[in-house]
Amino acid sequence: MATERTRIRRVPNLGRYDRETIDAVLDDALVGHVGFVGSDGHPYVIPMAVARRGDELLLHGSTASRLMRGIAGQDVCVTVTHLDGLVVALSVFESSMNYRSVVVLGRARVLTDRAEKLAGLRALVEHLLPGRWDEVRPSSEKELKATTLIAVSIDEASAKVRTGPPDEEEVDPERPVWAGVVPLRTVALDPVPDVRLSGTEVVPESVKAFAAKRSGRG
Amino acid sequence: MATERTRIRRVPNLGRYDRETIDAVLDDALVGHVGFVGSDGHPYVIPMAVARRGDELLLHGSTASRLMRGIAGQDVCVTVTHLDGLVVALSVFESSMNYRSVVVLGRARVLTDRAEKLAGLRALVEHLLPGRWDEVRPSSEKELKATTLIAVSIDEASAKVRTGPPDEEEVDPERPVWAGVVPLRTVALDPVPDVRLSGTEVVPESVKAFAAKRSGRG
Repeated sequence: MATERTRIRRVPNLGRYDRETIDAVLDDALVGHVGFVGSDGHPYVIPMAVARRGDELLLHGSTASRLMRGIAGQDVCVTVTHLDGLVVALSVFESSMNYRSVVVLGRARVLTDRAEKLAGLRALVEHLLPGRWDEVRPSSEKELKATTLIAVSIDEASAKVRTGPPDEEEVDPERPVWAGVVPLRTVALDPVPDVRLSGTEVVPESVKAFAAKRSGRG
Repeated sequence: MATERTRIRRVPNLGRYDRETIDAVLDDALVGHVGFVGSDGHPYVIPMAVARRGDELLLHGSTASRLMRGIAGQDVCVTVTHLDGLVVALSVFESSMNYRSVVVLGRARVLTDRAEKLAGLRALVEHLLPGRWDEVRPSSEKELKATTLIAVSIDEASAKVRTGPPDEEEVDPERPVWAGVVPLRTVALDPVPDVRLSGTEVVPESVKAFAAKRSGRG
């Protein structure tokens, strides 16, 4: 839903408010930047693991962290950004970046119910590394207690997407300048096994799928 | 400088306060996430182009944007994050991410002096795409007026860096599980020329160097 505070005012054609676009940007993210107002009134922005589950964004941190205690019940802004390319225009002014970003405004709800917390943790793990949940041992009660999960409703959100070439501009025939786009991608390199820990040398399906999905250069 | 509000309290061994580490993380960034408190008291986080110039971080946006008007003179938090890998542990609890992040707390100073603004714009362009400034035509006065540059002092900043394998954990011989790291990199693909605009098909040195620097998969 676009509200007065999420509506994009600058270059309005870049703003998108449909859930399909918003969800696609969120689902492509491993990390989001969580903003909150500290008890000192200063804004803080911290990177956290994120995963969308239905109409909520799940955020993961440690129960011990000042951050997680600080933002419980507070207003937060979660911003996810994918940098897709450098837009190299004929002029400095028209040079830009291609990106997809989503801003979610909401209140940080701490998951306290044990079953809901477990389900949330599973959703987060399965978003980051699909299939991993069933490969590893179950979490202990102690571990579960030491984990804080926060949910933020995606009700109030907006996306901003820039794609394509530089905005058109008059070419100066006296000064031939190259213009175009340098695409950027986040790619996975070959998995590096931990020789101390690994009980097996067989790379699991979860890791294989994760690496394969991000190995492409196209 | 580490202050009470930038000192890392959680997993203190990850915190770094030396300028060498902080500068290296900042210099590797094209985009940062800028947090500020809106006039409605709500936190907002917006992605912006960033470049370090000495002891200041330069932020770029449009004069027309609500954001740039809103944060002038205000306290901001600029956070830069590089996601370097997925840390795949034997358990969900020890699974993590390798990353380098820097949090800068400061006040947004708008560059108003024409010469300082021009120098700041040049520094920003030369950070994003070294060599580009001299390849394109000079910015017009109108363009310069329509550009807002903000500087934030790096005086109050902290870095957080996680590298290496998962934290050690007892291996269950009954349940052999692969553990390790999936490295992640941001890479540039081949530059895509804009056929409408380009006055030349020769990819310039600036773009070649940018793409070459980020083409490596190692």
